[in-house]
Amino acid sequence: MDKKKLSVVKIGGNVIENTTELDKFLTLFSKIEGPKILVHGGGKLATQLASKLGIASKLVNGRRITDADSIDIITMVYGGLTNKKIVGKLQANNCNAIGLSGADGDAIQAHKRPVKNIDYGFVGDIDGVNTNLITTLLNADLTPVFCALSHDGNGQILNTNADTIASEIAIGMSKNFDTTLYYCFEKKGVLLDIKNEESVVKHINSNKYQELLDQKIIADGMLPKLENCYHALHHKVTKVCLGDIEMIKTDATLFTTITI
Amino acid sequence: MDKKKLSVVKIGGNVIENTTELDKFLTLFSKIEGPKILVHGGGKLATQLASKLGIASKLVNGRRITDADSIDIITMVYGGLTNKKIVGKLQANNCNAIGLSGADGDAIQAHKRPVKNIDYGFVGDIDGVNTNLITTLLNADLTPVFCALSHDGNGQILNTNADTIASEIAIGMSKNFDTTLYYCFEKKGVLLDIKNEESVVKHINSNKYQELLDQKIIADGMLPKLENCYHALHHKVTKVCLGDIEMIKTDATLFTTITI
Repeated sequence: MDKKKLSVVKIGGNVIENTTELDKFLTLFSKIEGPKILVHGGGKLATQLASKLGIASKLVNGRRITDADSIDIITMVYGGLTNKKIVGKLQANNCNAIGLSGADGDAIQAHKRPVKNIDYGFVGDIDGVNTNLITTLLNADLTPVFCALSHDGNGQILNTNADTIASEIAIGMSKNFDTTLYYCFEKKGVLLDIKNEESVVKHINSNKYQELLDQKIIADGMLPKLENCYHALHHKVTKVCLGDIEMIKTDATLFTTITI
Repeated sequence: MDKKKLSVVKIGGNVIENTTELDKFLTLFSKIEGPKILVHGGGKLATQLASKLGIASKLVNGRRITDADSIDIITMVYGGLTNKKIVGKLQANNCNAIGLSGADGDAIQAHKRPVKNIDYGFVGDIDGVNTNLITTLLNADLTPVFCALSHDGNGQILNTNADTIASEIAIGMSKNFDTTLYYCFEKKGVLLDIKNEESVVKHINSNKYQELLDQKIIADGMLPKLENCYHALHHKVTKVCLGDIEMIKTDATLFTTITI
């Protein structure tokens, strides 16, 4: 039997911070047919709130540390304000959204990242995704909306990268669904020429990927992004799409599709 | 066919603000057999956060006004920090909790309270409870954990009294469940003598209620609480129990049971 299609869409801070862009995205997202899942990052709101409360962001070797105060603020902002605002707006678009952190229904199991050279604090590395829970919600015509929080099963909420949450959910769901993972970001896709927003590489497969790596067209910030995409593809996700929010329209053409 | 038993438990700010008391309560709550639902109030954390951020609480004729800043803070604290901490801790107690605001899965539909003499701001009066959603979650062995937030279906999150949310959920679920509503508060029950913590009236029915009203034993803050209980009982809730957190133990004896 053919597997049912599932869309997993991740949006980043650039969309969340801009109300007009967010509203536009949520209208488009609501129109995606079939079962779908949204994963949202946090944006700068948590940092701004921390700053207003006089809690300094802690960085070690340029990496952010999530201390006890920070995880509380992140839980408030990601799991509370941002998640519920998105859910409320999706409801207004007739999309029956249900907001989730990784603790809700034991959705995303993780462990605190082990301390090697740096103690990142309350940062979670994912151990598993509760695909039974997500399937139950999808079967009830609900649209799960995940914030970037996991939990350790011992009562501790943990901060986890939203890109990773999206790919791990897509991987988990691929056992039973024909899953497409969409990463919405600030560009229209992988660009051949970084200065030309229209120079989108429309299709990347493993050969093309190697070619683009050799030509150093995939470099800097795009390197981990593409690694993440291929990690998902090597774990049964059907395809990964990279582009701006217009990508999720049914008639969209200018974005990057990545396959094995 | 006999209806299945359901427990709806509401805890207030006095429990939430005290970590030891909250942990003790959550351990007891996890041990309740059969399907169960938790509703939690907010406590002083939202007011404290508002104060730290320099947002003054607005009161008109002694009644709190929920303005735009306040609803954001309440959403962060109730829907984010408090709700996710409780869910995380229940998970640690092997209780498969799932946190919900009224927007999630369209769980609690409300409208902004109409302006008469006072504009209460973003305060929601409940129109309906999505009992299908709650039943789906219970059937999946999940334990819904509600914070005191509703939504208007047009993208606006609203602040709603936790006692009211608990009674409306209990009323809605009573169509299909033999529902007991537990209100945990700071006393052991309705007291015959306010100065004697042990003078608990163990059972109140409609006759006894009238008697206690006539004797002015039910007065002040207990008046609306008992009115709320009888509202629930007149809408098919089987019984309402009032007491401290020990009340939910299977062998508890010192609390007040209220019936028609």
